[in-house]
Amino acid sequence: MFGPVIDELIDALRCLPGVGPKSAQRMALHILERNRTGGLRLSAAIGSAVELVRRCPRCRNLTEDDLCVICANPRRDSKCICVVETPADLFAIEQSGSYRGLYFVLMGHLSPIDGIGPEAIGVDQLMQRLASDQVEELILATNLTVEGEATAHYIGERARHAGVNVTRIAHGVPLGGELEYVDGGTLAHAFNSRKQLF
Amino acid sequence: MFGPVIDELIDALRCLPGVGPKSAQRMALHILERNRTGGLRLSAAIGSAVELVRRCPRCRNLTEDDLCVICANPRRDSKCICVVETPADLFAIEQSGSYRGLYFVLMGHLSPIDGIGPEAIGVDQLMQRLASDQVEELILATNLTVEGEATAHYIGERARHAGVNVTRIAHGVPLGGELEYVDGGTLAHAFNSRKQLF
Repeated sequence: MFGPVIDELIDALRCLPGVGPKSAQRMALHILERNRTGGLRLSAAIGSAVELVRRCPRCRNLTEDDLCVICANPRRDSKCICVVETPADLFAIEQSGSYRGLYFVLMGHLSPIDGIGPEAIGVDQLMQRLASDQVEELILATNLTVEGEATAHYIGERARHAGVNVTRIAHGVPLGGELEYVDGGTLAHAFNSRKQLF
Repeated sequence: MFGPVIDELIDALRCLPGVGPKSAQRMALHILERNRTGGLRLSAAIGSAVELVRRCPRCRNLTEDDLCVICANPRRDSKCICVVETPADLFAIEQSGSYRGLYFVLMGHLSPIDGIGPEAIGVDQLMQRLASDQVEELILATNLTVEGEATAHYIGERARHAGVNVTRIAHGVPLGGELEYVDGGTLAHAFNSRKQLF
């Protein structure tokens, strides 16, 4: 409609998650009509990020340096490793400020249907690290989905055999959550995991 | 948090309309974790679009060539010009397949508060075109907002003095619109613009 170059831009924008044909058109026209400087900055930022960003060899998180900022920080507790599925999960935990140990990012979860086995999510690498770094606690913070639970179970079993203390983050009613609006699965979890008060 | 290169990518993505900090983070991680090829393609597409796309000298629409595809098409009716605010409006009209004339894209609307006067939206250029191209009908398809109406009124007055037949697209209840859910302003328009049936 607009010509091949603009059409290619609209099509290329659709590689972004959550961007359909209408949003892509709106974004393309916004860049071309109003923010060409921002567009060029974005183009350069994608280029250098794709070129420079790789995985941390120790925790598989995204990094631009030899080690990621968390692994490279000597003040983090190296006796404790938290297993998460994605860098976004790691970021959410860091934002909460509630954890001072190290991480291991699976970059996915076990999913036999899609051919994703233990080696694809780096479980062997994690086991080597548990052995060599004298880790005392492994916190499993995978998502509470079928795949996330299966992944936590599999890693937990292997870590237990390696003699590491394995824990799972708690699941239940969220802070400020009103029981009336909480889904049944969460409520069931909250009841099953109830704690002794007195 | 992730390092300067990734942070710069997240920040640069926010130049896109409708993209806040959370979406930008999601998009950046998606590109880096899953779709680096798509990212590089997007980077190149933005680069070449910003370099090649300019305005059509005749209708001010975005184009990559000397004239835009519509102005360059000899089968379009050059006796009729439709005035729209943005290329997205033009695209919507083209999609409807209901118009075979030419366009004039204002790239905005009159807005004295923001310092946007008639020269910024190319009214003089439009008047020259009305005179030189022997235009018979000027269809005003600006939006039904205060600014769009004011713009339509201003352009309509000037075109009328130039001896051109000026029309405005109809406003009323949309197709499939149920009266119960149509807003009062639209209903008032629909009543004021009612047509004789028999």
